[in-house]
Amino acid sequence: MSDELFNKLKEECGIAAALNQKDAAYYTYLAIHALQHRGQEACGLIAIDQDKTHSIKGSGLVSDVIKPNFFSELKGKNAIAHVRYSTSGSDQASNIQPFSFRSQFGHIAIAHNGNLTNANQIRSTLEKEGSIFHSDIDSEIFIHLIAKSQKQTLIERIQHSLGKVEGAYSLAVITQDTLYAARDPFGFRPLVIGRKGDAWYAVSETCALDLIGAEVVEEVPPGTICQIKDNQIKKFSIPVDPSRKVRRAFCAFEPIYFSRPDSRIFNLEVHEARKRIGVQLAKEHPCEIDTVIAIPDSGVPMAIGYGQEARIPAEVGLVRSHYVGRTFIAPSQDVREFNVRLKLNPVRSVLRGKRVAVIDDSLVRGTTSMKIIRMLKDAGAKEIHFRIGSPPIKNPCYFGVDTPSRSKLMAANYSLQDMCKMIGADTLHFLSEDGLKKALEPDNPSQSSYCLACFNGNYPEKTGEKLSL
Amino acid sequence: MSDELFNKLKEECGIAAALNQKDAAYYTYLAIHALQHRGQEACGLIAIDQDKTHSIKGSGLVSDVIKPNFFSELKGKNAIAHVRYSTSGSDQASNIQPFSFRSQFGHIAIAHNGNLTNANQIRSTLEKEGSIFHSDIDSEIFIHLIAKSQKQTLIERIQHSLGKVEGAYSLAVITQDTLYAARDPFGFRPLVIGRKGDAWYAVSETCALDLIGAEVVEEVPPGTICQIKDNQIKKFSIPVDPSRKVRRAFCAFEPIYFSRPDSRIFNLEVHEARKRIGVQLAKEHPCEIDTVIAIPDSGVPMAIGYGQEARIPAEVGLVRSHYVGRTFIAPSQDVREFNVRLKLNPVRSVLRGKRVAVIDDSLVRGTTSMKIIRMLKDAGAKEIHFRIGSPPIKNPCYFGVDTPSRSKLMAANYSLQDMCKMIGADTLHFLSEDGLKKALEPDNPSQSSYCLACFNGNYPEKTGEKLSL
Amino acid sequence: MSDELFNKLKEECGIAAALNQKDAAYYTYLAIHALQHRGQEACGLIAIDQDKTHSIKGSGLVSDVIKPNFFSELKGKNAIAHVRYSTSGSDQASNIQPFSFRSQFGHIAIAHNGNLTNANQIRSTLEKEGSIFHSDIDSEIFIHLIAKSQKQTLIERIQHSLGKVEGAYSLAVITQDTLYAARDPFGFRPLVIGRKGDAWYAVSETCALDLIGAEVVEEVPPGTICQIKDNQIKKFSIPVDPSRKVRRAFCAFEPIYFSRPDSRIFNLEVHEARKRIGVQLAKEHPCEIDTVIAIPDSGVPMAIGYGQEARIPAEVGLVRSHYVGRTFIAPSQDVREFNVRLKLNPVRSVLRGKRVAVIDDSLVRGTTSMKIIRMLKDAGAKEIHFRIGSPPIKNPCYFGVDTPSRSKLMAANYSLQDMCKMIGADTLHFLSEDGLKKALEPDNPSQSSYCLACFNGNYPEKTGEKLSL
Amino acid sequence: MSDELFNKLKEECGIAAALNQKDAAYYTYLAIHALQHRGQEACGLIAIDQDKTHSIKGSGLVSDVIKPNFFSELKGKNAIAHVRYSTSGSDQASNIQPFSFRSQFGHIAIAHNGNLTNANQIRSTLEKEGSIFHSDIDSEIFIHLIAKSQKQTLIERIQHSLGKVEGAYSLAVITQDTLYAARDPFGFRPLVIGRKGDAWYAVSETCALDLIGAEVVEEVPPGTICQIKDNQIKKFSIPVDPSRKVRRAFCAFEPIYFSRPDSRIFNLEVHEARKRIGVQLAKEHPCEIDTVIAIPDSGVPMAIGYGQEARIPAEVGLVRSHYVGRTFIAPSQDVREFNVRLKLNPVRSVLRGKRVAVIDDSLVRGTTSMKIIRMLKDAGAKEIHFRIGSPPIKNPCYFGVDTPSRSKLMAANYSLQDMCKMIGADTLHFLSEDGLKKALEPDNPSQSSYCLACFNGNYPEKTGEKLSL
Repeated sequence: MSDELFNKLKEECGIAAALNQKDAAYYTYLAIHALQHRGQEACGLIAIDQDKTHSIKGSGLVSDVIKPNFFSELKGKNAIAHVRYSTSGSDQASNIQPFSFRSQFGHIAIAHNGNLTNANQIRSTLEKEGSIFHSDIDSEIFIHLIAKSQKQTLIERIQHSLGKVEGAYSLAVITQDTLYAARDPFGFRPLVIGRKGDAWYAVSETCALDLIGAEVVEEVPPGTICQIKDNQIKKFSIPVDPSRKVRRAFCAFEPIYFSRPDSRIFNLEVHEARKRIGVQLAKEHPCEIDTVIAIPDSGVPMAIGYGQEARIPAEVGLVRSHYVGRTFIAPSQDVREFNVRLKLNPVRSVLRGKRVAVIDDSLVRGTTSMKIIRMLKDAGAKEIHFRIGSPPIKNPCYFGVDTPSRSKLMAANYSLQDMCKMIGADTLHFLSEDGLKKALEPDNPSQSSYCLACFNGNYPEKTGEKLSL
Repeated sequence: MSDELFNKLKEECGIAAALNQKDAAYYTYLAIHALQHRGQEACGLIAIDQDKTHSIKGSGLVSDVIKPNFFSELKGKNAIAHVRYSTSGSDQASNIQPFSFRSQFGHIAIAHNGNLTNANQIRSTLEKEGSIFHSDIDSEIFIHLIAKSQKQTLIERIQHSLGKVEGAYSLAVITQDTLYAARDPFGFRPLVIGRKGDAWYAVSETCALDLIGAEVVEEVPPGTICQIKDNQIKKFSIPVDPSRKVRRAFCAFEPIYFSRPDSRIFNLEVHEARKRIGVQLAKEHPCEIDTVIAIPDSGVPMAIGYGQEARIPAEVGLVRSHYVGRTFIAPSQDVREFNVRLKLNPVRSVLRGKRVAVIDDSLVRGTTSMKIIRMLKDAGAKEIHFRIGSPPIKNPCYFGVDTPSRSKLMAANYSLQDMCKMIGADTLHFLSEDGLKKALEPDNPSQSSYCLACFNGNYPEKTGEKLSL
Repeated sequence: MSDELFNKLKEECGIAAALNQKDAAYYTYLAIHALQHRGQEACGLIAIDQDKTHSIKGSGLVSDVIKPNFFSELKGKNAIAHVRYSTSGSDQASNIQPFSFRSQFGHIAIAHNGNLTNANQIRSTLEKEGSIFHSDIDSEIFIHLIAKSQKQTLIERIQHSLGKVEGAYSLAVITQDTLYAARDPFGFRPLVIGRKGDAWYAVSETCALDLIGAEVVEEVPPGTICQIKDNQIKKFSIPVDPSRKVRRAFCAFEPIYFSRPDSRIFNLEVHEARKRIGVQLAKEHPCEIDTVIAIPDSGVPMAIGYGQEARIPAEVGLVRSHYVGRTFIAPSQDVREFNVRLKLNPVRSVLRGKRVAVIDDSLVRGTTSMKIIRMLKDAGAKEIHFRIGSPPIKNPCYFGVDTPSRSKLMAANYSLQDMCKMIGADTLHFLSEDGLKKALEPDNPSQSSYCLACFNGNYPEKTGEKLSL
Repeated sequence: MSDELFNKLKEECGIAAALNQKDAAYYTYLAIHALQHRGQEACGLIAIDQDKTHSIKGSGLVSDVIKPNFFSELKGKNAIAHVRYSTSGSDQASNIQPFSFRSQFGHIAIAHNGNLTNANQIRSTLEKEGSIFHSDIDSEIFIHLIAKSQKQTLIERIQHSLGKVEGAYSLAVITQDTLYAARDPFGFRPLVIGRKGDAWYAVSETCALDLIGAEVVEEVPPGTICQIKDNQIKKFSIPVDPSRKVRRAFCAFEPIYFSRPDSRIFNLEVHEARKRIGVQLAKEHPCEIDTVIAIPDSGVPMAIGYGQEARIPAEVGLVRSHYVGRTFIAPSQDVREFNVRLKLNPVRSVLRGKRVAVIDDSLVRGTTSMKIIRMLKDAGAKEIHFRIGSPPIKNPCYFGVDTPSRSKLMAANYSLQDMCKMIGADTLHFLSEDGLKKALEPDNPSQSSYCLACFNGNYPEKTGEKLSL
């Protein structure tokens, strides 16, 4: 599931940039369309055409904000675009990425995905020196740092600027002739470089390259700025204060839930990783059942894996509506029950009289699980064996995932038995942390490259500032 | 698949009416939301509040046309709503159902699904007598016939009016205190009556009853007008000229493709029927394969059935985008290739190096199949064995399905071998007509209750007028 | 003054039709733009292009509803358009003229200005016979009468239909090759025929012909249908029941207030008539003053006439804002005072310490006069001598002017002295009925061709139905 | 006349600020509504509510951009607003004033009217130091200068910043507790302080104070910053480099054309000044005439003055449409002639057979005068004696008036005789420069306080940068 109605965790952003591509705006539009699942609240696009920029920003889905007739304005061979799920700030256009400014190096446009942990501190220093901020969001920090850097070249200025920020970021910068793609030293968020002839791209997930027909070149290595110009990639490292202890810390929720199943991120086929999660779940928590169903969409490959291991083919027990997007839910109490049914409807013939294993990707607040289980039982399911494709979430995230406060995280507050009772399942089980490691890194399960802090509280880095949760 | 981009067959309508339901407009809104797959181009809703009607009509999806703030206006305990795929006429509000008029019986509002075969002839007679038509569509014929009938009671007037029209229709009529639900003598289109306490509903498919939490009472029998009033159903037969030869002629494409898998129509669980189609396909046309995948969505249960019979569990080989709705496709030639990719993306890890059975529900023009197969092969599939869950479509429909002209129906113009070559598959096979009958009526496959004219040309009734195809 | 904020009397409509004019839609658009003062709430336009019609309707000003890009759709050499001030019914598109229907004579489109006094009675008869009405407004009656008439030719059908209706109407009908322009036997509302080469027009006022560069041919005579075809006008009389006593009854408020000063209606130059009103006012009610000012706009020529007679040149004492259109007035009490100031601002240097004659065209509720006088005194005026260019309004209108109920007509409820006190003037005087007759028909003041019923209660015809006032 | 259709000179801005006023946003909304004539292309409003700002900006008229439902958001007791005619840059929201930023002094919002002559030079310096500009317009320079100033107090920072800029500006700055109103040392543009109880305002013209019911306190003296706080005005001078030679240089076109006739600016009653212009014109250029008419609106008091001196009362010879705003003009050649007629229509009865003096405020390109004269002659005028209430315009303006390039200024390129012939008048005369001085400063005509550079080329100050004309 991937919808607001469902109180799922939320990713903050998807980014896409194109260099040396005719009609670049249209290609970045397609790319963020393919990345729409990473942010549905607002989007923006800036095209750089010689010494001019053209931009469009707005609240809503890509297809609502960017209309066909805009492209005659969005000229140029370089462009950058962004989809956003807003955690803070308002929906005003000033709070929507990408950002651009005019510099002695020409126009510079920037988009990023992630969350800086020392943002307030940097912003405050900059304001005292006379920088004027127009938004509440982190990305604007990058442009002010770059604008104020007195280094000679732009790559030096970017290095200098990234050396000052802490936290999670995957960043794309586009100018009149160069594309820069950078990932923070921990590598929290994905960012991949693609190519099609002489055109180059930087996108959050490979599914965006598939749509525009480009091939994958490589993932941007953590701690690296890739400078792409004249059909060449040059790599520059991001300076890191020696007091910081850097390690790999890919976000585990990218393969579990955020990314599209047809993407390859962190050198992982997402669909296969989810199937392995299902297999692992079946090994850890088998049960006597007649059928296996998924809660769409990320649960689907997990259910296939579970069914494969259990030798009971997965079935379609819940039909997902394609039109739920902006359906109005009446404010009155009993109508509020519709929210799950608007999105999912049980297939009675699959469920009637059956013992059913139901596979979901994660359990956050538990309220939606409760409604789905009630609906499945109303549709005739005899027993519900709820299986979760990730460990219990007990801690908030400071690196760009919008987790609710700890008091609302079900697993942070209740025992397994209580949770099972509360959601109305007959049995409830989570994937173990070791099981997750095996599924994500089958060749190297002992030494995880992933950030699992939301499960185990081992944050990759202490943060001076805390998000208000 | 269910999208315009894909040149699929198109249904014309979905209807929903509510009687004696507080906030009836909101309930019919939910119902047509659940029926959105039956028509995405326009929708309308009329609420009857004592001696007033309130209506809203517009082009677009239900959620785009009907906004939360409208409901304070859409008062009343009775309401009727409609979603439409427009085959003829324009998108002007005057061409959007439901229609209503004020009569000596109070306000009468009507919505219908289907296609009348003697529409032009009746319309012409009515116009000569001074009736003024405001739309190009069949439904307006019903209201003029009822308005001009000089019979005493409304039920007699409806009987009298329906006795004059020929073709396919499932019709709902709502007044200040009564709901009428009628189906043509052949029963081409579905229509089902539901109930929740003292509130009654007539909807195209049971999935709409699920959403509003109502129970199924019964399908409206072909050739019958159900009059619902004071918590009672009374049945009246539709008079038929003895020269007409009436038989059961349910549209086979309702279970194959139009209806939602979680619906029950024609006393058939749609999901199960599709699984039986898959099983039957595997029996008729087995092949050496490594995996089975579906073209979403109607192909999914067929693939599950195929995989079950073939003992090779179905996989997710194509990911469907949830946001394709109104994506803009650039007019330039090479970008046009994006249309399939915008909607479907292959999962490379599932396909790479594999021999794949691909299950689709039907083959109309063949152009989309061609693009999908090319995409699957580009993603690494070694062999594609294309299997179609219905017989070859060789004839146009006159009863409400928007088939292209015969010259564009691939199966009407090419041999199996040629088609296989054209779409680029390694093998291609269709379900046999007998196989389809078995899947749709397992208990009585010899004597079909279905209209199979698009496959075999045996039209249930000669029609004086022909649709311009 | 001509604005809703000001509680003025309201005209219901302006109409325009063009025959045999290339880009006819654009010309009728210009014409109703020139007639915008006759109705600002909604407008509509229908173009007839061979066997098709194209229409646009909406709430708001002509420039808000009809946009440049629409004209590529609004093809054809014949068109008809309408501006409306809505007295009854809603703003729904179905309640906006013109109306059109398809008949055996091809497409017929109709627009009218006026108010039928036997509308309900005719409508009720038509509905019993099976006619279905889609609007609440009188104009639809015309199309149903014409559609149901069984006469051979269209002109006979129009004659037959107009013979049945009573009340006020100026009517234009356009078909694929003919323009019909008709005025009721009393001639309440204006309607004039214009020409430019082979193109012909029927419009409410001559100012519309000025804008499109056409010459005036003649006013449609009362009780006459002008049939224009093949560059010829043929005249047909409207049959009148002998029991009805017909006389000339031009609406006196057309020259006093509704019409534009640059128009010629009822064979009268409006600007000159208003100047004569001013002269007459000065003769009847002179006073010791330092300056003369008008309440814009219809008061301006009256003030010039008054000043001319008084030998004190009229001054600009109130500046009218050009942007008041849709300014928002806050709902709180004290802000409500802004409504007059938003529209008019006093010129202090003209008023300071002066004895001022203030000329207004009419006095309806008196509330606005009160506010203006207070504003003028606040700006420094020493004395205000209020002069009204029409007699006291004491009776409602049944022929198309939207008068408030008698209880709200100031002059129907208070003495001259009381009114003077209430509005805060130093003196108050109205033009006499004889004075008005002289100003409107200087050559024949004794035997008025005008309806003066709102002043004297002598209605031209008894009406069976009364407007709900 | 004041419309774009007419190729008139254009003012760039109107500003309004309110301090300590409940619902301040609504009051500044009313104020810029009254100042709408100073800029019709875009407008913006920022309300300061404790530590938050709320803003709304958009292209179009005030009533189109700011809607009633916005006010619940636009909270706070301090607000600032702006109307704009755009000379440079685009219509993007980022180019619309006011601007605001967060500083150590809290939120600061700024709006200005005028044109800086050293803008590019300052901007370039600031960008080099790392300031990021988001717009193309001068106002942003003020906020960056203030943000970067290292002075202790805000008033010192404003002084310091204004000491750096050259050219024309009337500026308002609002914070959480203070209103600053400043005018450049030459005093090019008007700015007046008003008061109503404890609420204070700064507005471009007094007509805005009239609308909100406030009294005039005083005009901001040239070269002064008025700091208003705690119901007190403190005055601070703007530092001026001793090398600059400062004098009074009020823009003569403010009283001639830009300002509303009911305003008092530069200690001048605008209506009276225009009447004196008319009187002066009649003295300098009398003629044998039957009537005097104005080209509305600024010509009206001039015509009254002319008529008074000539002892021939002014008449209404041209009716101005109230609805011309956004009327669409078809692109085809002959329809283009409509542009003047859409706005003005001659009153034939006033003109027929007459010798007419026509009074206009200025002559810029001459194209509109030509069309009007042709229209007046077509309407029957026998002779046209064209009189212009200002001297010939021969030079561009660098201080905020949007003059066309010299090659398009009729008087810069043709003799009086040629111009008369080209526009089709029988005689043509301009007011003399001395006559204008007398009309603007009757008590001190010899030593003008006005900038008359567009007439005589004596610019008040040399400017390093030139506007691209």
